[in-house]
Amino acid sequence: MSSTLPPLAGKLGGLTSSAIRDLLKLTAHADIVSLAGGLPDAELMPRERIAAAADAALRGPGCLQYTESPGWGPLREVLAARESARLGRTVPVAEVFVTHGSQQALSLLAEVLLDPGALVVVEDPAYVGALQVFRAAGARIVAVPLDAEGMRVDVLRELLGRGERPAVVHTVSNFHNPGGVTMSPARRRELAELAQTHGFWVIEDDPYGELWFDRPAPAPVASHAPNVIRLSSASKIIAPTLRVGWMVAPDPVCRAVELLKQGADLCGSALTQQIAAELLADTTWLTGHVDRVRAVYGARATALVHAVRETFGERIVCTDAAGGMFVWADFTDGTDTGQMLPRALEAGVAYVPGQAFAVSEGYRGSLRMCFTTSEAPVLGDAVQRLAKAHAAG
Amino acid sequence: MSSTLPPLAGKLGGLTSSAIRDLLKLTAHADIVSLAGGLPDAELMPRERIAAAADAALRGPGCLQYTESPGWGPLREVLAARESARLGRTVPVAEVFVTHGSQQALSLLAEVLLDPGALVVVEDPAYVGALQVFRAAGARIVAVPLDAEGMRVDVLRELLGRGERPAVVHTVSNFHNPGGVTMSPARRRELAELAQTHGFWVIEDDPYGELWFDRPAPAPVASHAPNVIRLSSASKIIAPTLRVGWMVAPDPVCRAVELLKQGADLCGSALTQQIAAELLADTTWLTGHVDRVRAVYGARATALVHAVRETFGERIVCTDAAGGMFVWADFTDGTDTGQMLPRALEAGVAYVPGQAFAVSEGYRGSLRMCFTTSEAPVLGDAVQRLAKAHAAG
Repeated sequence: MSSTLPPLAGKLGGLTSSAIRDLLKLTAHADIVSLAGGLPDAELMPRERIAAAADAALRGPGCLQYTESPGWGPLREVLAARESARLGRTVPVAEVFVTHGSQQALSLLAEVLLDPGALVVVEDPAYVGALQVFRAAGARIVAVPLDAEGMRVDVLRELLGRGERPAVVHTVSNFHNPGGVTMSPARRRELAELAQTHGFWVIEDDPYGELWFDRPAPAPVASHAPNVIRLSSASKIIAPTLRVGWMVAPDPVCRAVELLKQGADLCGSALTQQIAAELLADTTWLTGHVDRVRAVYGARATALVHAVRETFGERIVCTDAAGGMFVWADFTDGTDTGQMLPRALEAGVAYVPGQAFAVSEGYRGSLRMCFTTSEAPVLGDAVQRLAKAHAAG
Repeated sequence: MSSTLPPLAGKLGGLTSSAIRDLLKLTAHADIVSLAGGLPDAELMPRERIAAAADAALRGPGCLQYTESPGWGPLREVLAARESARLGRTVPVAEVFVTHGSQQALSLLAEVLLDPGALVVVEDPAYVGALQVFRAAGARIVAVPLDAEGMRVDVLRELLGRGERPAVVHTVSNFHNPGGVTMSPARRRELAELAQTHGFWVIEDDPYGELWFDRPAPAPVASHAPNVIRLSSASKIIAPTLRVGWMVAPDPVCRAVELLKQGADLCGSALTQQIAAELLADTTWLTGHVDRVRAVYGARATALVHAVRETFGERIVCTDAAGGMFVWADFTDGTDTGQMLPRALEAGVAYVPGQAFAVSEGYRGSLRMCFTTSEAPVLGDAVQRLAKAHAAG
């Protein structure tokens, strides 16, 4: 039947499904320990608290109707207070915009900030959800590498010195996905300074900032300059099902995003936004809850990193487990992680090869491992399976 | 501060806020009977049933996590069964795609089906949410008028005869917003035939089809041809807060939409999709519930049309109240509804001037009235206020 159907848009030829998503489909139902996912642990989500908030919201009729495009007013007020504390300045409610997960903020910002052919600087390895959106917007993409202190801002400075004029620089400043690293305070100040000097937007994408293990993440890049748009989310600290992300941005950006949100989906869910408002407003409970998530993830991350270092010794270098959901590792012995993957699946473990996050080529010796959904012994077992696959190479 | 901010994308210059939304902001808090809205009545929404479904869903951990981009599997199965009955053929689950309200389906379809400059045919007066999306996609838009039998398919045939080659024809086939009319069975078959002969897509946008008063809407255009993409929604029959819309489309369209949905917002809410699945699957309850909504809306629509005809006589012509949420009326005495609006607001009644729905110019003597959220005596009072504003002109 499809042979007689009208054509689709020509630009779709360039779009391909995320390699990670396709891989997840392969591994989800098999007898495999998956380090390939990128999901928070559902067992740690505050199910009863969400149920109580849903019940309370549904006692009145106020949560059934369409809500405002920028988000339910009281949720925006809670977020403004929260972000004011985080940014060290008073964030007005008008500068807080609720999105359908922070991915929607990225998607709408790409339309709001980018003309076709505009230059976007991303980190390499990159958050693929951002890469996909910027590519779909027709941006020209230039990558700046990460090191242990986050984005190599010195490389960005060189680019600017050569006359490159980005419209947007995108960074996952805390506990990078996939790189695991956090941008240092000095680089944050430097990036903010460059943004102001050269007149570009920074999108500071921060879904993981609360998930620190030993010490809180440094002050956001957005605390250093007005042209930094900060994104965050309830998905990793409460639950993805709420589909509540948010953006803190100057008023003209919020108003432009509002116009596009009307066309994209009119508005979010008044019900899930009321649940989010209730839980985010109860800061005493939230602190305790997030502390518990941190402690569990921290122990799992430590176990994974320990097992990897014990098992592979000098044949692998991996990031420290400082926060977030991911550990990034580089084989030093010439192992090709893409080629090793079928053997790993056979041995009963899945991961994402580094190349899936490369902006162009590279990271063939790297892999991303997610530690959130398995307990320490299972993670240890996963590393043994990985060693088996490695030895069989 | 904003004077020092980097620029936004150039294309945003052409975007303006919806005149209707701006008007709603003006009228929401005043002592005004609003016929200007477009909301279903929250009092008729099954609040307790939604609360029970939320509670049941939240007893297990399965509704907290990210869900699949095309929607939660069991919801897609319920929708496939529902749409199979509606379309008179077996709709496979793979051809059902859940979106964040049916507005998101429109927005993603515009990207999937349209190259820049592609021709889109819309009805005039038009659903402004569709117009906004097609304009943002850079489409060339040609309007075909409505009459009492819906889209003037003969005018479309003429366009095709002159060599116009649309990529997409958009229709609100049932109880049109804003026109109130329903496309006749003969025109549905003719439109489907033209779509197959000339190889264009039809988007059949059907949020109101269940809200018939005297007799069910005719078989969908989508029952007559495979290249008709059907959109529907739970917003008008259950509640907008679920943000559950859906699309029935051939597999290649669903797969392309899936790729774009990953970039747009990853996925919908597993919680609200489970609530929707529970309520849509209980067909006995749902039939009774929708019957009640129909009866209430039908009585209100009849009251409004009766009052308008009684009060204005031959100075106005308005659509019959056959279903949906809106009555469209044309003044025959040269009244300019845009000019009359300030007087109407002063008299305590709001409506949307016809020009807000015009594809280019026109409908200066028309207005759209929404009857869903006011009881019959209030609607009668609103028409008296309208008469006062009219007399003061």
